[in-house]
Amino acid sequence: MTDTLAPRRRPTIRDVAQHADVNASTVSRALNPDTRHLLGEEVVKRVLESARHLGYRPNKAAAALRGGRSHLIGMLLPDITNPVFPPIVRGLEEELRGHGFSVMVASSGGNSAEQDQLLERMMGSMVDGLVIATASRQDYLVQRCLQENMPAVLVNRGEDARHVPEVVNDDFLSMKLAVDHLLALGHACIAHLSGPARLATGAGRSLGFRLAMEAADAEGIELACAEFTREAGALACAALLDRHAGITAIVAANDLIALGCYDTLKARGLRCPQDISIIGHNDMPLVDMLDPPLTTLRIQHLEMGRQAARLLLNHLQNPGTTPVRITLAPQLMARGSTAPPARRHNPATG
Amino acid sequence: MTDTLAPRRRPTIRDVAQHADVNASTVSRALNPDTRHLLGEEVVKRVLESARHLGYRPNKAAAALRGGRSHLIGMLLPDITNPVFPPIVRGLEEELRGHGFSVMVASSGGNSAEQDQLLERMMGSMVDGLVIATASRQDYLVQRCLQENMPAVLVNRGEDARHVPEVVNDDFLSMKLAVDHLLALGHACIAHLSGPARLATGAGRSLGFRLAMEAADAEGIELACAEFTREAGALACAALLDRHAGITAIVAANDLIALGCYDTLKARGLRCPQDISIIGHNDMPLVDMLDPPLTTLRIQHLEMGRQAARLLLNHLQNPGTTPVRITLAPQLMARGSTAPPARRHNPATG
Repeated sequence: MTDTLAPRRRPTIRDVAQHADVNASTVSRALNPDTRHLLGEEVVKRVLESARHLGYRPNKAAAALRGGRSHLIGMLLPDITNPVFPPIVRGLEEELRGHGFSVMVASSGGNSAEQDQLLERMMGSMVDGLVIATASRQDYLVQRCLQENMPAVLVNRGEDARHVPEVVNDDFLSMKLAVDHLLALGHACIAHLSGPARLATGAGRSLGFRLAMEAADAEGIELACAEFTREAGALACAALLDRHAGITAIVAANDLIALGCYDTLKARGLRCPQDISIIGHNDMPLVDMLDPPLTTLRIQHLEMGRQAARLLLNHLQNPGTTPVRITLAPQLMARGSTAPPARRHNPATG
Repeated sequence: MTDTLAPRRRPTIRDVAQHADVNASTVSRALNPDTRHLLGEEVVKRVLESARHLGYRPNKAAAALRGGRSHLIGMLLPDITNPVFPPIVRGLEEELRGHGFSVMVASSGGNSAEQDQLLERMMGSMVDGLVIATASRQDYLVQRCLQENMPAVLVNRGEDARHVPEVVNDDFLSMKLAVDHLLALGHACIAHLSGPARLATGAGRSLGFRLAMEAADAEGIELACAEFTREAGALACAALLDRHAGITAIVAANDLIALGCYDTLKARGLRCPQDISIIGHNDMPLVDMLDPPLTTLRIQHLEMGRQAARLLLNHLQNPGTTPVRITLAPQLMARGSTAPPARRHNPATG
């Protein structure tokens, strides 16, 4: 179908030149406020009238081709329907807007071929820089940006090699806050439903969980979810409960996985927090209004977007600077989904 | 700050020509699979090696300037953090991807100057068409698209004059389903917290509410919210309860306004649904998991995005066709926030 679509015709600088009966270079000069004074007043007036009449507009892409800036920043998301990302985008937009840049967001649906194509199209439409929220720990897009000399910043998910600047949450601190909260409530048998290990958020929270449990001389159980989704969380929670009957608390690697735990508990007639306490991660919108309200780690999403904007602007100004990693501190939001464990009889707690 | 940013340099076709020691036109032919056969094998090989060595990539924006297509569709949102929009974007992406197009999303934060600038930048980066979710009933952006001969489709919010194709929810049907549900439960004193009248969704649902009440020979109370937000909903709900003590049910113009009603009821020690039943609109993610789960009208968001994609593709193929309005049917999701009214004493019912 694509091939049968007829190209749209828009007026060019040559059309304006013909209409105003001048050279194309005269049109360029007349349309540019910086060079307009080089021409006679009458010529400028005639060119502007022709441009208006024909509906001509100066082309940003053309300007960008000539070596200027488009003032567009591209942002790549894995999935626009994951509520983690919109507040990051908003923070990015707010900060960049103040410097005259706009943001265009594209999501790949987790499809790597689509991701590559989006990257090429964004570069092709002359974005000045990219903010990448799709990064895996070894990321192909980052390689492409480096090859193309395209300024890029990672947000939310970092990369192991740290080739480009990044803004991430302190996942070790998150897990320490979560584990300490549960231990303080009296839980002894705590499990972590981790995210995919290929993503920095999955691997980092998993390691953070183990370190936090070790620091408290406690032993944790861990099971990985295939994806950071509610469905994957429900499946993993079911497998966890089948294998480890004594669990009294679950640290989910994100809120969607925690919601999957809610689903599985409900399906099995188990109550949260009476039977099992659950902690999420991210504090996405509305989880404070759930039944029960979800205890979770609040990420500084807006700030993450703002910081990413600043890193990118800095990168545009000073291309040679060392890529830094900025880590933001999470905050425990203790709500109704965590409580002291019930003194029920089960194989693990006696 | 913007002005001090140095332009990024990327290799041009001339750099490749110089490196391979051929003419620029030879480079063009060698890089284009359709014309490559016109050249000798050795020359093609040399050009491709030079291009790879220099990191040259064919420029989509340049191709678009020469009259081709960018295969990019721009989408304008009022606010990326409003959960109504991500599923619409996803439906749009899915359908367009099947036809070789990608979507770039930008949100204006409800700021009309920013909206204009985003439109200009999207046109400047040579999008092939636009999907507009920000429309007011008389919309300036639509005027600009018509002037510029830029294919555009409205989604979620329509325009009074119907200059361009649109895909919207059937708001009259929504309100009929909501009102009939409440009447069937036995409510006699029903209020509508409407959205802004400048938006088609605000005005349409308000008119739909009045028509549905009239059809049932019932009299409704209406109060407008300043915005489609939780905060505006909470304020309007408070004003409503102050003025009309006898209300037993509220039809909110969207879910965020309904959440604002939850907040106000909670702050005043009123229970939902025992004291006041509440219906939302949109069925955004997680409202089924709230306490109480929100009764609401489910909009076909994914389908809305898909239909918008088809309208736009059709518009690209047949620029002259009549702009149609596609209306999708909503579905009542009856949940815990609506119940028969309590037989309490109050000025209106007692």
